[in-house]
Amino acid sequence: MSGPQAPEPTLEGQADASAGSPDEDAAEGIQHSHRMLSFSDALLSIIATVMILPVTHTEISPEQEFDKSVQRLLATRIAVYLMTFLIVTVAWAAHTRLFQVVGKIDDTLALLNLACMMTITFLPFTFSLMVTFPEVPLGIFLFCMCVIAIGAVQALIVLYAFHFPHLLSPQIERSAHRGLYRQRVLGIIVRGPALCLAAAGFSLFFYPASYLLMAMVIVLPHVSKAAGWCRAQLVGPREPPAHSVEVFTFDLHEPLSKERVEAFSDGVYAIVATLLILDICEDNVPDAKDVKEKFQGSLVAALGESGPHFLAYFGSFATVGLLWFAHHSLFLHIRRATQPMGLLNTLSLAFVGGLPLAYQQTSAFTKQPRDELESVRISCAIIFLASIFQFAIWTTALLQEGETLQPSARFGGREHAFMFAKLALYPCASLLAFACTCVLSSFSTAIFHAMQIAVPFAFLLLRLLVRLALAGLRALRGLVGPVLARPAPGAADEAQSPLLPAPC
Amino acid sequence: MSGPQAPEPTLEGQADASAGSPDEDAAEGIQHSHRMLSFSDALLSIIATVMILPVTHTEISPEQEFDKSVQRLLATRIAVYLMTFLIVTVAWAAHTRLFQVVGKIDDTLALLNLACMMTITFLPFTFSLMVTFPEVPLGIFLFCMCVIAIGAVQALIVLYAFHFPHLLSPQIERSAHRGLYRQRVLGIIVRGPALCLAAAGFSLFFYPASYLLMAMVIVLPHVSKAAGWCRAQLVGPREPPAHSVEVFTFDLHEPLSKERVEAFSDGVYAIVATLLILDICEDNVPDAKDVKEKFQGSLVAALGESGPHFLAYFGSFATVGLLWFAHHSLFLHIRRATQPMGLLNTLSLAFVGGLPLAYQQTSAFTKQPRDELESVRISCAIIFLASIFQFAIWTTALLQEGETLQPSARFGGREHAFMFAKLALYPCASLLAFACTCVLSSFSTAIFHAMQIAVPFAFLLLRLLVRLALAGLRALRGLVGPVLARPAPGAADEAQSPLLPAPC
Repeated sequence: MSGPQAPEPTLEGQADASAGSPDEDAAEGIQHSHRMLSFSDALLSIIATVMILPVTHTEISPEQEFDKSVQRLLATRIAVYLMTFLIVTVAWAAHTRLFQVVGKIDDTLALLNLACMMTITFLPFTFSLMVTFPEVPLGIFLFCMCVIAIGAVQALIVLYAFHFPHLLSPQIERSAHRGLYRQRVLGIIVRGPALCLAAAGFSLFFYPASYLLMAMVIVLPHVSKAAGWCRAQLVGPREPPAHSVEVFTFDLHEPLSKERVEAFSDGVYAIVATLLILDICEDNVPDAKDVKEKFQGSLVAALGESGPHFLAYFGSFATVGLLWFAHHSLFLHIRRATQPMGLLNTLSLAFVGGLPLAYQQTSAFTKQPRDELESVRISCAIIFLASIFQFAIWTTALLQEGETLQPSARFGGREHAFMFAKLALYPCASLLAFACTCVLSSFSTAIFHAMQIAVPFAFLLLRLLVRLALAGLRALRGLVGPVLARPAPGAADEAQSPLLPAPC
Repeated sequence: MSGPQAPEPTLEGQADASAGSPDEDAAEGIQHSHRMLSFSDALLSIIATVMILPVTHTEISPEQEFDKSVQRLLATRIAVYLMTFLIVTVAWAAHTRLFQVVGKIDDTLALLNLACMMTITFLPFTFSLMVTFPEVPLGIFLFCMCVIAIGAVQALIVLYAFHFPHLLSPQIERSAHRGLYRQRVLGIIVRGPALCLAAAGFSLFFYPASYLLMAMVIVLPHVSKAAGWCRAQLVGPREPPAHSVEVFTFDLHEPLSKERVEAFSDGVYAIVATLLILDICEDNVPDAKDVKEKFQGSLVAALGESGPHFLAYFGSFATVGLLWFAHHSLFLHIRRATQPMGLLNTLSLAFVGGLPLAYQQTSAFTKQPRDELESVRISCAIIFLASIFQFAIWTTALLQEGETLQPSARFGGREHAFMFAKLALYPCASLLAFACTCVLSSFSTAIFHAMQIAVPFAFLLLRLLVRLALAGLRALRGLVGPVLARPAPGAADEAQSPLLPAPC
């Protein structure tokens, strides 16, 4: 990145040339939105993942049977977690689109954004209230109020930005149809909250209608989209309107900003990796009194008691870390993230957020051999789902590879096969572990965690082997000298080994 | 930022021109380190803040007296939190410096970095073990082992990067003294872990010596720095060595990368803001059975029970959000962050991390009027300390304003007075609240939280008033027309109102 002697202000170096020098902007009170957006991404990713905590903290004491009431409680909480994750992701996507329209911020917009964040952080609570008491209208009323408040703040942001057009993105600022843009953007933002207002009204005297309206909020855009697609297939595409070059399509077909998808994903991975150590720091520092009484003062024995927890932690961290690594490699080769890719990414992240549950499952049941295999299987399933959706992002990207991928990752590119191997690693490994639980009766959580820790090393070993094999292959072709020193990516080289991974 | 129709890959747009096109790099397996560094920052900021949780979860039941044992427990935990925060920050600073030397990454470096992160996440646990059992050598042994492991991984990263010089930062890659650089960088990285190795050895037979060595690790660099400064004052500055232009000073005097300071701070603010809602989501969703039995099925009554918690949450979020806002405004005007500014930032963040404690203090004691004023005072003190250190960053920056600040924020710049007001807001407000607790006997936590929520509005009102006053001032000067429409930052304008804030 920047040199160590004189770190350049890279952030402000990204300023559009048309927007004047960064210092001039700062003097006017106008600021680039980069840092505010990263902060919002961090907040939203944490909020999306937070609701896994009630799931992992569901207490199942060893003597208590895993009966129906516990099962129902657990199922409810998992449903709350998944739905919260999706709701917060939708709010995040709306936020992303909003700040593709609003290009710069000033103090007022920064404060309005904070107000918006505060309301969003409250969504999970109202939602879990709604699920815990489905027959009490208060839950859905509060939830609707939250959505309305978010919509109101976002509408305020849009109105403010259109009132000071230098805050808009340059494309819209220069457009002649600015008023038209404002109508469209406002219309899209207000649509959901308006339905929620009706739902809140109904909740006061006939609450089932509220649930119906809420369902409409979710289903309606997809139905209209599907209808449009069907009509296009039957009748042929509609004539674009007269000023089509100018009309800004602020809707769901637009690709999301790749930078923000990455920031949001990073936040989820980071919080998941650290939720694990959080539990360890809270629960596994032995009590001084306990050590004296139960372990005759031997700290080693007391720590040995929670040894499986540490093994489980390292195993889970290795898994989360390597999943992040695969995500990171994947997005290095992606040029832009389309809507289906964004959806698949959300699903993958939702299961990554479930990994602390996998950790808790596999570390809590270590004393009950009967449940041990069961919990390893659950872990395998969660890891499999998280990684298979990553793989699906990749295959979806390949469908439109010209638009979405860097040339080196496309079919026939240098990195294609290697990328494939990286993404296939975890689906295969988790399937293998699942198969082991069925075949080997002596399979245990300890072996499972050891496997988790071994995967990165296996990966590095694989790389080394591939590298050696490649070097051997090239030696056979009489290309040893120039390649081993430092491979220069020449056109001739590329043509000769189109499907082999890069050696470095 | 980027236009909505075609979001450009801004990340890769930052590539050095000398490093070839981004796609060419990706094809070679070399990647820009930007995203990996943001991920590391997010992880480390969460880890630094995590140890506040044992503090906030210290259970003090209403009937139990706040006796000596509880006080000692609380004091220990707060000390652990503060020390952990500092230790993790030191690890973060070392990581920042390391990746100022290593400019690009490949897969192996990414995995090594993950291993480094995993070891760092384990530091808080070993440290709290060390503090809970000071007389058992196991704690310090494990802690030293962690530090040694981190040092070993970092040394591996350096060796690997110097083995493939195209991974180094361009400045070092081109240097003729690369071997010399490697010696120096390795020497600095290995110094601490080597002392820790000795400490680990001592811990096996004479553990007090270990603590002495650990203290040396912390004190030594500062002593040598102070000695060097004294010598320079007495004898005059030493002659720079012959190849001084080339020698890369990989030491504590270098400014930190501003981008990474921002990312780390954002992480801390984000996790602090969400730790609050986390507690609410876990503890304040009423139980269905409780609602039926205790509140005769009235959900509103059950929620009213935890009403003060919600008020406290919104108050705390407003405070954290506005502190972030002040930090954001401050760093917009900072060009580079020097070492003292980094230290002050760390201290400010450490107290920001203490805000959940303030929240818990003020919301747990709402039922005991005797302790209420006490807990409000603690909150005020924490907020005051967090904000006064922010203010100190600003004054420190002013001491070297030519080097550290944008022109508009320096003495006499357009934004100077306004920046001053923004940063002075919270120190003044918290002092005011503290004074209120001493004077008004009817002051309560509810009033305190209402004050917290009111501060942003007061701030906006203040802005509006200043703006109106400015407009009035300009009207008097006969400048009404051009200024009200949209203020053009001309030189003439600036000369006339040098100390007044920008109107937008």
